[in-house]
Order: sequence, then structure tokens, then C-alpha cells
Amino acid sequence: MTTPTDPPPPPPPDVATLLVSCADRHGLVASLAQVLTGHGANILEADQHRSEQAGQFFQRIRFDLSELLTDRGTLERALNEVARRFGMDLQLHYDSQQPRLAIFVSQYDHCLFDLLWRHRSGELNCTIPVIISNREDLAVAVAPMDIPFVVFPISKDDKLEQEAREIELLERHRVDTIVLARYMQVLSPSFIERYQNRVINIHHSFLPAFAGGKPYHQAAERGVKLIGATAHYATESLDEGPIIEQDVIRTTHKDSVRDLIRKGRDVERNVLGRAVRWHLEHRVLVHQNRTVVFE
Amino acid sequence: MTTPTDPPPPPPPDVATLLVSCADRHGLVASLAQVLTGHGANILEADQHRSEQAGQFFQRIRFDLSELLTDRGTLERALNEVARRFGMDLQLHYDSQQPRLAIFVSQYDHCLFDLLWRHRSGELNCTIPVIISNREDLAVAVAPMDIPFVVFPISKDDKLEQEAREIELLERHRVDTIVLARYMQVLSPSFIERYQNRVINIHHSFLPAFAGGKPYHQAAERGVKLIGATAHYATESLDEGPIIEQDVIRTTHKDSVRDLIRKGRDVERNVLGRAVRWHLEHRVLVHQNRTVVFE
Amino acid sequence: MTTPTDPPPPPPPDVATLLVSCADRHGLVASLAQVLTGHGANILEADQHRSEQAGQFFQRIRFDLSELLTDRGTLERALNEVARRFGMDLQLHYDSQQPRLAIFVSQYDHCLFDLLWRHRSGELNCTIPVIISNREDLAVAVAPMDIPFVVFPISKDDKLEQEAREIELLERHRVDTIVLARYMQVLSPSFIERYQNRVINIHHSFLPAFAGGKPYHQAAERGVKLIGATAHYATESLDEGPIIEQDVIRTTHKDSVRDLIRKGRDVERNVLGRAVRWHLEHRVLVHQNRTVVFE
Amino acid sequence: MTTPTDPPPPPPPDVATLLVSCADRHGLVASLAQVLTGHGANILEADQHRSEQAGQFFQRIRFDLSELLTDRGTLERALNEVARRFGMDLQLHYDSQQPRLAIFVSQYDHCLFDLLWRHRSGELNCTIPVIISNREDLAVAVAPMDIPFVVFPISKDDKLEQEAREIELLERHRVDTIVLARYMQVLSPSFIERYQNRVINIHHSFLPAFAGGKPYHQAAERGVKLIGATAHYATESLDEGPIIEQDVIRTTHKDSVRDLIRKGRDVERNVLGRAVRWHLEHRVLVHQNRTVVFE
Repeated sequence: MTTPTDPPPPPPPDVATLLVSCADRHGLVASLAQVLTGHGANILEADQHRSEQAGQFFQRIRFDLSELLTDRGTLERALNEVARRFGMDLQLHYDSQQPRLAIFVSQYDHCLFDLLWRHRSGELNCTIPVIISNREDLAVAVAPMDIPFVVFPISKDDKLEQEAREIELLERHRVDTIVLARYMQVLSPSFIERYQNRVINIHHSFLPAFAGGKPYHQAAERGVKLIGATAHYATESLDEGPIIEQDVIRTTHKDSVRDLIRKGRDVERNVLGRAVRWHLEHRVLVHQNRTVVFE
Repeated sequence: MTTPTDPPPPPPPDVATLLVSCADRHGLVASLAQVLTGHGANILEADQHRSEQAGQFFQRIRFDLSELLTDRGTLERALNEVARRFGMDLQLHYDSQQPRLAIFVSQYDHCLFDLLWRHRSGELNCTIPVIISNREDLAVAVAPMDIPFVVFPISKDDKLEQEAREIELLERHRVDTIVLARYMQVLSPSFIERYQNRVINIHHSFLPAFAGGKPYHQAAERGVKLIGATAHYATESLDEGPIIEQDVIRTTHKDSVRDLIRKGRDVERNVLGRAVRWHLEHRVLVHQNRTVVFE
Repeated sequence: MTTPTDPPPPPPPDVATLLVSCADRHGLVASLAQVLTGHGANILEADQHRSEQAGQFFQRIRFDLSELLTDRGTLERALNEVARRFGMDLQLHYDSQQPRLAIFVSQYDHCLFDLLWRHRSGELNCTIPVIISNREDLAVAVAPMDIPFVVFPISKDDKLEQEAREIELLERHRVDTIVLARYMQVLSPSFIERYQNRVINIHHSFLPAFAGGKPYHQAAERGVKLIGATAHYATESLDEGPIIEQDVIRTTHKDSVRDLIRKGRDVERNVLGRAVRWHLEHRVLVHQNRTVVFE
Repeated sequence: MTTPTDPPPPPPPDVATLLVSCADRHGLVASLAQVLTGHGANILEADQHRSEQAGQFFQRIRFDLSELLTDRGTLERALNEVARRFGMDLQLHYDSQQPRLAIFVSQYDHCLFDLLWRHRSGELNCTIPVIISNREDLAVAVAPMDIPFVVFPISKDDKLEQEAREIELLERHRVDTIVLARYMQVLSPSFIERYQNRVINIHHSFLPAFAGGKPYHQAAERGVKLIGATAHYATESLDEGPIIEQDVIRTTHKDSVRDLIRKGRDVERNVLGRAVRWHLEHRVLVHQNRTVVFE
């Protein structure tokens, strides 16, 4: 299926993204820029952020490799040398290596179908090799999409074993990013740890309000005038991971729980869609359980 | 395909909706209430609006028919008698008679798929017997939906003839409501007139700004800090019909036209979804090219 | 000081507002309407809400008294008779009797000055006979306003005595509504009880998130992407009273606590302004710690 | 009057802001960074934007001068040398030289008082030496503020002469920035030209919708579901200058023109407040009638 957009996208250039995080000190910007330009890399975009409170420096650099004077290996060694010297966390992502995304779902279809639609529309720069579920519900609906839909039912007794099978499948598909699109199972700490800052969850409330189960029921009970959704990286502490994106929609006394669920779906889809796109474009850095999003 | 929601919807009751519009005067509310309760109809909801400026009265009444003392025909005659006496425009819609909706599309799929998803999710109380397009593009994508997709190519020379065929098809399917889901053809005045206040169009700008073609390009050219979308009833004057719903999203200098198109799609879907739902629930009244929306 | 607006306000008519809350049952709407019209009162607006979940009925009726066939006393007795019969909570407010509002402040001036500006602009239909503070800070700034500014310093030991003096002052000024415009003292339960559902507080977070002290610091620590404000009726349980209005504003990783405080002030002012206006126009009903707002 | 905030602002450091705009080419970033660091300036923040469509490069650099190896004059000559070489538009602003702002008003007070409150609260880094009006209305209200309020009545016949007197006054006060806070007079082209990109106007609609007079009346007539406000630099073409900031608020069929005016005031104040702050912090660049805002 193709989704025409206007104008057509340009052909993918030979470009890479560098993500840097380290304790703030003089000379950081100059050192990285010098290495890049010295090797013939042409800087296209550079965003930076200094957190005064945390004393931390963050940078995202997009650069063109098409006129590189050396080769990628030489450039990488030079960047790693700088990283070692300044104690940098450094990530390097080539556009030519598309992220590989797995979507986890249960019975609700709105976030799943929205992500698949965004993917087809060209919004999400990734490959989606597999969809995983703990239930059969959405198998038929997903069938026309030509993406394997694999069911791993989870009970109290076999959670770790089933997760081991899931991880095996994820590794076979070389998956690097996981989206929990209203997946109604808690992942075990060992699973989370393996994919640290690479599992994106959507929670259907504006966290930290209404953490835990049935947030729309909680919202109706409390009588709030706004409901929301939060996309965050999953951590061991449920609903407490670093927040990537949030949004809200107005509600009134007329809204029943059913209305909140309906209104909330639109927010969930948009919030998750933005968070996944930013992650896939390497715009998100995590530090001390908070995110820097170079939008 | 089923979309589980939580909690499940209650069974449809024996309920009707009355929509009234007339010049404001004393005794309107009492007269209608008296007729309804006199026939054993139980009023569930009643919203009203008095426009001081227009001197016009508007009302929407939801009432339960399950304990009717007479029959529907008798009640209808009594209501029509009141309508005649007060010069009322009066619409009566039974919940048991679902609206029948046709969707018109061209090459863009986001509004179409969103409406179909909302329909499957139970948000839109209607039957969708047919999708009509002037292009083949979306035929394959729509195929799994089990809804006839009929193509009527339109050229300058055959517009009225093709529209005649479309109308024939619409009548065969007893369609009463039409949604132009980014349909890239202007309907002829005679077509519009036949379906007055029953053709909902989505325009991809916050009207009256950027009427006409390529509104996202116009927005980029003007350098606005918000883009939006407008759902309105189609009239002979393009982009000037009664507005049902609008919304916006923030943009910045970083956004290219491509980014505006991407951001705008999310707004278009949500605005159109709300407008169609309100129309199907008989919440919208039109007077002097403006709408009253009993939300 | 006069604030010109365009167009000028019409002269205040002889109008009253009825607020009703009771267990839902048949015949409620008809009974009240009959009593009103039977006495010659002309219904101008009527909003109603049925909470299915709570089985409760709420109504707000605005009616014109200028052609009353009896007198106010007779009408009131008749309304009270209906109220008794149906077990209604019934409030009757005449436009001719303006609410009398006291503002409580501490050191922050933004909510106070905003309310005073809204009052002068004609947005708030009330008299403001006194401003009360636990600190001297804003005395000089308030001086040109021609409203008494009375300071009651509060320490741990004299809270109840000082509150007794405040209540004496409020009664002398016949105050019926209190706004805590960032007042940094917790009122004692006996004070709250005396002015039940008549003390409006502004909390600088989207409750229930970040209840308690220093919510902007809490928000910065948690890394949320939205901050907000909540106007609610004060109850014995701090930050847990019925919510009247809420709103939010976007934040990013760039925002320091100082930025959050600055951004939040704009939200606090608007949220509090709306909540106070709705309360003064008798648009708010409280039931089971939630509000119905007939906007 | 002091407005306590929490925490207190740090003492102003020895910092400057560089704003650059030029045709995009290789080596721009490196050249400027080299000159700055070569003179001992320490770069604190650097934002940049490349407009692919316009082929233009924009940058804002904040740097610390406290450890300068040379002196300001030498640094400025070096920067001007780079600017000449690359054909840059270059602005250099020292924090120690506060902008000097004049506010123009007519009869409406909300934008004026809001700006004055923001100024006292420390949000606006500027001096306000004079308020100018074409009417006497607000003289009394402004009196307690200790800012000269000077009235220049304007008629068709004496506009240019009165503007000449205004300019003389502005020059005497060394004013560099002008805010039209709902000033109901059109400035002549020669006035605008003298203060190019330094006159900020607030228009009470989301431009380009409802340009010209009485936009709230136009909005009510058209039946829009959102109203808005736009802050822009004034140009010869009324309401067509570069947009700095915009925002909207929802409206319904219930809103009369008076309600739109009331709702709109809140939007106008917030939009103008943000635009003025960004301008004063040298965050806004203009190119081809659009703005780049380094927020």
C-alpha cells in the first residue's frame, strides 16, 4: 500500500546522527566539531542543551558523510577517542541502518493501527518485522498487513519462560526498539534491563496522575477537567520511567467513563506517534530519569 | 474485525432525537414538552440555545419511546402540528434508523482510514454502505474492509454525468450523509443542494484563513505559528459553509511544508472524526451559515 | 478606573438563577417549569444534566422576574414546596443581590492583580469589600485600589484566634465567597466548614499530580512535558476538593524551575479567573466531591 | 512594588548575544566559534537553523565575556570582519545594555497592564521610560505606575506632525523597541521604516484570518469555533508583518461578541507577553517576512 504525500520525499542521503551526553566542561563543542570537520564530515544540524542544575551537556549532531576524507571506521575511532577523553556517552546512528521495531499489543487496536498507518505514510523511519501479543484478539485484523503476528500467552507461572521466547524472537528479527502499544502485561525487570531506554510505553493518563490500573476510571472518580496520555521509557518502576511526550484533552461533567476512553484514544495515538518518531530519529536522550528531546 | 472497549456498550434503547429551530417566542419549551409527555415520551436530555442576536431558538431533545401511550404516527402528527403553529423547522430521528454514510476520497488515506477505524470502534453510529472515489489509488488498501469501493473518474466534460451516476448509486444505497474525506473534486451546486447540510467536508486550514488550494503551502509562505483544520458543511461557495468543528497544532520555523502536512493530518483526522460523530448523533443545527452544536 | 469594552454592557435586568440538585426521577423538569411559569416567571435559559452513574439530576434555570404575577416571597414558598416534595437541594440567587467576595493572599501578586483587573473590566459580577493577607508584602501595591487590605499574621499558636478575627471581619463585610489567590496558609477545618463550597483555591499543578508543596519543583524533578493549574473548592483534605477548572501549558527540557514558575503563572491566572466567574454566575454544582459546571 | 518569586534571580552576568543571518554555506559555524573562542569568549548557548527552502542560515549565540583575552572593541572588529566576509547580517547585544521599551495604547487597558505586571515581575528584561497614547482614557489608571504617560491626539490632518513629536520623545528617551498594546492608530510608513522589526503589534485574531477592523465581530459572523491573537512586527502592509507568536481559545455558539472579546483578552495578553519577551531576549530573527524564534 502506498500513501501519496505532497511533495514526494527526497532520496535518503548519506547522513548520520551523533548523540552525546556528558558532564559539562569547556571545549566540548569545539572538540567534536573539529573531529567531524577534520574527517570531512559536513555538519547539517547541531542542537545542544546545558542543564545547569544537573551540570550536564547534551548534543545532537546531524552530519553528511558523502565527502568523508577518511572512512567510517577511522571516524568512529576518532569519535570514541574524544568520548573517552571527556567521559562522554556517545551514540552514532547511520541513516542507512534503519531501526527495527517490534510492537507489543493486547486487545486494544487503536495504538497499533495508528503506528502501522504512520509507518506506511512514511512518518516512522524504521522496519517493523514483528508484532507480539499475549492474546489472539487482533490476529485477524492484522492479517492483511503482511507482518508476522506472534502470540505468547502469559500466565503467572510461565512469564519468564515466555519472555525468554519473546527475546529469542526479537533477536532473530534483530529488533532494537520495542513499543508497548497498550500491552496489558508488565515486563519483568530483566527484560526491561536488556532493552534499557529502548522500550516505549503509552500510559493513558498525564503521569504522575493516575498511575496504575484503570486511569480513566480514576479520572472520572476524581472529577478532573482534563485527561491525558504519557509516552515514556519503561523502567522497573511501573509508570515512573523517563517521560518522552504528554498531551491532554478537555473533559466535562457530561463525560462518562466510556466518553473518557473514546476521547483518550485520540490523545494516546498522537502522543505515542510523536514519541516513537522522535526516538527513531534519535532525538531523545535520557539523564537522571528525565528526557532531553531535540524536537 | 472487533475492537474491544471497556466497558461494553449498553443495548440500544428505544430512543429518538428531536431537533428544533424557530424564531424565538414565549411558550416554545412548554409546548413541545407538553406534547411529548402527553404522549408518554420520557425526556432524557434537553439542550437549548437562544441566539439573542439572531432572535432564534434552538433545541435538542432526547426522549424514550418505550412507554409511549399512543403510537409513533400519532406522536409525529402532534409534533408536526406544534411545528406548524410556531413555524418550527423540526427534525425527528429514531435511534433504530441508523444514518447511512458514504465516504468520498481521492488519493489521501488518513481521513478515510480514521473514519473506518472509528466506525469499527463503535464511535460512529451509522452504516457505511459505499466508498466513492475519483481515483483508483486507494482501491487495494480498502479491499480488506468489505465495503464497496466505486470509482467515478471526473473530467471537465463529464462532471455532471458522473455526478448523476454517483447520485444514482447513493440513492440505491439509501445514503443520507456524505463525508468528503479529502476528496479533491468540487461538487456541483445541484449535487450540494440535493444534500444540503448533509455533506461534511474537511478543509486543511483554520478557515477563513487559507481557503482554496494548497493551504499548507500558504501557511508555510505566511509563516504562521499554528496550523489547523476545519470541518464544515459543503455549500456552493467553496470553503465558506457552516463550520462544525476546528482545531489547531503549533508549528515553528523548523517545520517544512512536509512537516506541516504530517502535523496537519493528525488535526484533520480528529476534527473530522468529531464533526461526523456530532452530525450522526443529531447534535448540529444550521442557521444563517453558522452551526449550533449541542455537544 | 474604567475599562472600556466594546460593545457596552446592557443594563442589569430583573433576573434570577435557580440551581437544583436531587436524586433523578420522572417529572422533575416539568414540576419546576410549571411553578415558574405559573407565577409568571419567564425562563431564559435552562441547562440540565443527568448523571447516570450517580443517579443524580442537576439543573440551572435563568428566569426573568419582571412580569411576575405574584411576588418573590410567594414564588420562593412555592419553589421550596417543590424542593421538599422531591428532596431537592435548591439555591435561588437574584441578580440584584451581588455576591460579596474576599480575596486571601500572601506574597505572590499575580492572581490577586488578575482578579482585581477582571473585576474592574466587568468580568466578575461581585463586590470585593476586603483583601486579607497573612503578610505585609502586597500592602503598598494594593493601596491605590481603594480596597481595605487587612493583615492577620498567623503562627502555629494563634491560628484559630486569628481565623476567628478573620471570620468576624468577613461577617462584618457580609462576605459570602472567598478566593485563596495563592494564600500560603492552610485554613482550619472549622473555617472550611463554615464556608463549604464557597472557598475557591488555586493549586499550581494539574491535580491530582503534584499535590502538596512546591509543585513546580516536583514537576521539574519528574520531567513532565506539561505543567498546569487547578481551581477547586477547598475542603478539609488539602488539594482534594471538587475541581472546578484546570488547564496546562507545554514545557520542555530547557525550562528551569524559574521558567516553570513563570509559565505557570499565566495558567494559574486564567484558570482561577474562569473558576471564580463561573462560581459567581452560579454555574457550579457540587456532588460527591465532583462539580457540574454549566458553562 | 516588588513581586517575590521563588527562587530569586541570579545576578546578571557579563554576557552578550550574537544574532546572525546569512546565505547558507560551509564553514559558517566554525568561523564564528573560532573568533569567539580565540578572543576568550565562552559560548554558553548556540542555536542554529538552516532554512533549506530559503537557503538561509540563522544563529543565536550566547557567550560569557568575563574572561575575554582582548577587549570588546577588538572582538567587535573581528566579528564585523567575519560578517563582511560571509555577507552576514550580524547583531551584537550586551546584557548590560537593557533594551528601552515604549508602550503605545488607546482605550483598552488589558495588554498595557499585563506588560507592566510582567515587567515588575522580572519577566521582561527592559526599561520602560514612557507610555504614549492618542487618548486620555488610561491616564488616571497609569498614574500610580511612575511612568510618564504622554498623550498625542491624532487627527487626519496632523498625523505626521504628531508622529514627529512622538519620535522626538522616543529619541529623547533612547527608546529602541515599541509595543502597540491595542493602539488604535495606523502608524505611517516613515515611522514604521525608522523602527523596522522593532515595532511589535498585537492583532486580535489568528492572522491571516480576520485582518482589519473588528475581528471579534467578524469571527462571530463567520461562526468559527476558535478565536485567536497574533503578535507580529508592524510593516507598511497592515496586519501582514512577520508573525512572532499566535495562540487560540475555543468558542461555541453560546458566545456573543462580548464573550469573544472577554475570552480573546486572555489570549492577547499571553501572546503579546511571550512575543515581547522573546524580542527583548534577542530570540527573534526576520527573513522574507517570516520569523525564526529561538525559543
